[in-house]
Amino acid sequence: MTATWPHLSGRLDGNRHILPVRIYFEDTDFSGVVYHGSYVRFMERGRTDFLRLLGVGHEALARGDHGGDEGEGLAFTVRRMTIDFLKPARIDDLVEVETTLKELGGARVVVDQTVRRGAEVLATAVVTVALINAAGQPRRLPDWIRAKLPPPS
Amino acid sequence: MTATWPHLSGRLDGNRHILPVRIYFEDTDFSGVVYHGSYVRFMERGRTDFLRLLGVGHEALARGDHGGDEGEGLAFTVRRMTIDFLKPARIDDLVEVETTLKELGGARVVVDQTVRRGAEVLATAVVTVALINAAGQPRRLPDWIRAKLPPPS
Amino acid sequence: MTATWPHLSGRLDGNRHILPVRIYFEDTDFSGVVYHGSYVRFMERGRTDFLRLLGVGHEALARGDHGGDEGEGLAFTVRRMTIDFLKPARIDDLVEVETTLKELGGARVVVDQTVRRGAEVLATAVVTVALINAAGQPRRLPDWIRAKLPPPS
Amino acid sequence: MTATWPHLSGRLDGNRHILPVRIYFEDTDFSGVVYHGSYVRFMERGRTDFLRLLGVGHEALARGDHGGDEGEGLAFTVRRMTIDFLKPARIDDLVEVETTLKELGGARVVVDQTVRRGAEVLATAVVTVALINAAGQPRRLPDWIRAKLPPPS
Repeated sequence: MTATWPHLSGRLDGNRHILPVRIYFEDTDFSGVVYHGSYVRFMERGRTDFLRLLGVGHEALARGDHGGDEGEGLAFTVRRMTIDFLKPARIDDLVEVETTLKELGGARVVVDQTVRRGAEVLATAVVTVALINAAGQPRRLPDWIRAKLPPPS
Repeated sequence: MTATWPHLSGRLDGNRHILPVRIYFEDTDFSGVVYHGSYVRFMERGRTDFLRLLGVGHEALARGDHGGDEGEGLAFTVRRMTIDFLKPARIDDLVEVETTLKELGGARVVVDQTVRRGAEVLATAVVTVALINAAGQPRRLPDWIRAKLPPPS
Repeated sequence: MTATWPHLSGRLDGNRHILPVRIYFEDTDFSGVVYHGSYVRFMERGRTDFLRLLGVGHEALARGDHGGDEGEGLAFTVRRMTIDFLKPARIDDLVEVETTLKELGGARVVVDQTVRRGAEVLATAVVTVALINAAGQPRRLPDWIRAKLPPPS
Repeated sequence: MTATWPHLSGRLDGNRHILPVRIYFEDTDFSGVVYHGSYVRFMERGRTDFLRLLGVGHEALARGDHGGDEGEGLAFTVRRMTIDFLKPARIDDLVEVETTLKELGGARVVVDQTVRRGAEVLATAVVTVALINAAGQPRRLPDWIRAKLPPPS
């Protein structure tokens, strides 16, 4: 089906990943614009599809499939998130979530994320994620994942 | 903490369970009223707290704790749901979710659910749930759960 | 941006509309599969994008833009929904929401919706929607919208 | 109904507000614990009920009811949010959201928020909110709201 729906996971553009997101009823609130918590969901979709296009899937990671080798089940988890809400998105809007790698540590990754509507910046975030095992213990980013990531910018 | 927050899980009233639910920003959409999908969440909260007050917890079930005995991990899953949306709830409203047991089969339970604001009926539903194991296979409702349920009305 | 992201709103295929939906963290629950309430959101996205590709947008309707003429603000609202949950979707899955027009009355529209993963049917629904004004009063489906809808199948 | 459900909106304790929140299916994700975006919703509930117990309701504000006087419709909006996710909450958990006023400016309010499970701190946040009118323009915090707020701590 992926062939049928090109760009459903957005696209890589150099160091950046861009994901289109449509605003539906579910994303808005009674104030008439998008609920602030919805941007948190959009940004998670952006990070997930960035990883997907690099060849890292949540389901395979959780199963312990480490790029072919077997290992313990792993999952990415968010440790810290700072979001600035600048302008509201509205129903029917098409926005884009841009994700860039900012820092790559032993056990954590920091990304910059921006939500835009055309040229307008609606929200920006700095998000720190870490890799944990099923027991919640932090795990060093494996070399096979590290090898797939673009250099931090 | 439960002592500190009486009625947080609602209350049993004969065959019925009543759960109070406050309407927050997250539950509304840009049309100014509650998003239709939010009632599905409220009804799940009602069913969960009905079971909780009867002594059946999701976490214990998933761990395989069967009222003290060990067994395979189980979870309730929704098989079928018919909802009628009659009147909209609004931000700041306090609504009540009423749940009553309608049918009790070998492997499935049917409940009636009603969302009210005071005397006004906002939404009604008939929901069929079943018990499954971790592999998704249907499981007969164990006697220890059956013994805790009120008679269907 | 629409040119950049073809098929973001799915596609019309005769009387049917097909929308691709990716399963993200936000759509799942602790049982390991997709939360039942998430299908309600996916189905709303399908109905919305069906209307969008036919030329009917929620934002324009709410503003009272009736295909060019001015009028009172209108919104679609769900009156009744029956959903059968057959098989669970999982994280990273790509599913498709198919929407077909089933009945077209004076003030209400009934659609059939099916969520598939490849050839597997995961969930089906029959959904009745109606058009209301800002005061919540039912409104007859205007001729300009009626003219855009495919014949019921 | 408020009399029937004491403490549904939590309670004021000196400068602090405490709101109990139950973890339901809807709040969790396939990793087995609470989805990080759910804490954002819990914290909004805490801020809303803090205001509610002080006598400031979203619905009345949006209608332009300024503590009895009429005025333009207003709504609180989140400008900035920094969250640290320390330990995960799980299904069936009862957590408490503590909100304290940190800074009170002319047009913005900064609050500290902490989510706890018993004595364990699960998440902390610093949140800046502002008041806007229906056109999205910032508005000075009216004196009648200011008079109801406790002194920043």
